Amino acid sequence: MIKVAVLGYGTVGSGVVEVIESNNAEVSVKAGEEMHVKYILDLRDFPGDPYEDRVIHDFNVILNDAEVSVVCEVMGGVGAAYQFTRQLLEAGKSVCTSNKELVAKHGAELLEIARNKKCSYMFEASVGGGIPVIRPITKALTAERIEKITAILNGTTNYILSKMEKEAADYGDTLKKAQELGYAERNPEADVEGYDACRKVAILSSLMMGKNVDSEKIYTEGISKISAADFEYAKAAGMTIKLLATSEALEDGSVLAMVAPAFVSGEHPLAVVNDVFNGVFVRGNMLGDVMFYGRGAGKLPTASAVVSDVIDCARHIGRSSIICIWDREEAKLADVAESRKRFFVRAKASAGEKAAEIFQGCSFVDAGRTEDIGFFTEEMSEKSFEEKSSAFGEALLSRIRLA
Amino acid sequence: MIKVAVLGYGTVGSGVVEVIESNNAEVSVKAGEEMHVKYILDLRDFPGDPYEDRVIHDFNVILNDAEVSVVCEVMGGVGAAYQFTRQLLEAGKSVCTSNKELVAKHGAELLEIARNKKCSYMFEASVGGGIPVIRPITKALTAERIEKITAILNGTTNYILSKMEKEAADYGDTLKKAQELGYAERNPEADVEGYDACRKVAILSSLMMGKNVDSEKIYTEGISKISAADFEYAKAAGMTIKLLATSEALEDGSVLAMVAPAFVSGEHPLAVVNDVFNGVFVRGNMLGDVMFYGRGAGKLPTASAVVSDVIDCARHIGRSSIICIWDREEAKLADVAESRKRFFVRAKASAGEKAAEIFQGCSFVDAGRTEDIGFFTEEMSEKSFEEKSSAFGEALLSRIRLA
Repeated sequence: MIKVAVLGYGTVGSGVVEVIESNNAEVSVKAGEEMHVKYILDLRDFPGDPYEDRVIHDFNVILNDAEVSVVCEVMGGVGAAYQFTRQLLEAGKSVCTSNKELVAKHGAELLEIARNKKCSYMFEASVGGGIPVIRPITKALTAERIEKITAILNGTTNYILSKMEKEAADYGDTLKKAQELGYAERNPEADVEGYDACRKVAILSSLMMGKNVDSEKIYTEGISKISAADFEYAKAAGMTIKLLATSEALEDGSVLAMVAPAFVSGEHPLAVVNDVFNGVFVRGNMLGDVMFYGRGAGKLPTASAVVSDVIDCARHIGRSSIICIWDREEAKLADVAESRKRFFVRAKASAGEKAAEIFQGCSFVDAGRTEDIGFFTEEMSEKSFEEKSSAFGEALLSRIRLA
Repeated sequence: MIKVAVLGYGTVGSGVVEVIESNNAEVSVKAGEEMHVKYILDLRDFPGDPYEDRVIHDFNVILNDAEVSVVCEVMGGVGAAYQFTRQLLEAGKSVCTSNKELVAKHGAELLEIARNKKCSYMFEASVGGGIPVIRPITKALTAERIEKITAILNGTTNYILSKMEKEAADYGDTLKKAQELGYAERNPEADVEGYDACRKVAILSSLMMGKNVDSEKIYTEGISKISAADFEYAKAAGMTIKLLATSEALEDGSVLAMVAPAFVSGEHPLAVVNDVFNGVFVRGNMLGDVMFYGRGAGKLPTASAVVSDVIDCARHIGRSSIICIWDREEAKLADVAESRKRFFVRAKASAGEKAAEIFQGCSFVDAGRTEDIGFFTEEMSEKSFEEKSSAFGEALLSRIRLA
């Protein structure tokens, strides 16, 4: 029998217990032994809950119980969660988590401890919710040199952008509706400013590079400046706008990572990743492009991913199941200013002549609007674009990169 | 050092050697030991080939070499490939294959031998080419009860349908062009009649059910009757036409599996799986929908999948890496005639009144055509549809299911 403890009885924690109980036949067969949740650690009590007898308040009960071999850390944060995870791994207990903040910040160190202690630190649920992303990248694409990742990693912003497109609505109104429906938090900053996607792409980048990619050094831009007018131009050009998290392994050994809204061709598979769904596009040197698509959040999908990690750990008791490389050495981040791409520009109608002059070779998009103009530049460095576009001054209404 | 043998030095076989050699650093790190191709078995000689010194003609050299722990069977067919695979597994050597025909026919038996001999029989490359499909289903979605699979599994037919849509071309012309370009074989029957997709969906269905699903019992319909006119109606309805392989675990314990062209909504993620790409949509009871997308064929993508299996075997020397359930017991196939769905019908223009009479509640599609009419029926059983539509006689031009 595999005895499991769950740290944190919130949304994901209760989902983990539900998946292990509801799918117990499937889970136990796959784990090779019956699986049982022995403890649920939480500060609160849950009178009336079907599992109230398993709720405890003292972490040390779990740490010191030799029967518990796998622990799910689904409490979040980088304080107690970090201390608990360290102690558990040091004690040789495997830890499975959905805590992207902790993984992004201390993943390399926690993986090292797990390896040394012949147990596992697993985090499938930290990126893409229920979509298998971490495991395919680390355990399936093993014959590949991964060259580039292009992904929609945040369900809230994708929901907002999808609605803006469908309903020709502005950002502010759409955010408000999303908050009313529970798709966006009351304090939506972590989502809409791209911080959540940034942590996730830091994790994927670290796995791609085999070195630590510091999320705080990744250039990050949110969606709050995107307007209904931008979508009109995107539509006229057969495109859409998505918040993309991208990461590319450059030939000089550095990594070019960023989070920013981008114009995406309507024919690109990421263009149909709508609403709260996520999509992760991976380019391998042998394989070409593969994409993983599904629900990027939600109680049961996320819990299902945590439990798939628990099963993996259960099959590797006494040895580490970790196959990924993620050293503590810091990866070198490439300078975004030097990276080259095309840009979409929306400017006041009066700036039309200036546009053709400054951005020679640019192509105008006819969206049937008179208030403003929109055009695509030729490919240039970000730095060069900033220099040129500064000539527009206040006439510049928006600029969005092309994917 | 992991010593590998490759059976068959054709397209995939030479790709396997290329992936192991070109990505040797990545492959060896992931395998935990350096990987080396010791033998290449083929009937032919390859003078001038960089690996000509490794080519041998006697299978027994591989079978009797204790140094060889993993063998790639990429020769195809169900004759010698079957005998060789059995002998290798009986000898405790793991076998990795891209041979979907053999996996579909003898997978259950070969898995059983591998399990008993503490080695592995792996077949990631048998479905979806380079896309991780088998491993995510068997090793990532382990906490799920998989309920349904909807997939585009054949690159040739998907290429033909994509071209027909884009160029408003008819089937015959498009097939001819595809043959000229090498995207379709001179004898294209296995692809265009759906047999290839059928074998692949039999493999996925067996993994979903945990029992053997006989590919020969799966209802299979190809794309040769699809016309440019059908695509006109699809377009007018905001849809497209794809050759879908579907498999659903029904509540009575049976499985409803089939391969047939279907109208797919333009908003469905499978609608943008174009050209030679494949897409596999999986519905789990906790997770909802996930999709895996990528190149379903090709030398290096397929070889990459084979090598990912070799790495998995290399990490599990002396024990089986198999986690899937696929018993020899036959799964019960549900009767397609009883299954319910909506249908698209195209009929001679003169049959308009009859249509509204026979298919009450049907909705007509205006594609601006005068030669014929097109409409969607309400949901009904296949049997009931066949009965009703027989009243059209020769006026019935085509009937295509709705996904």
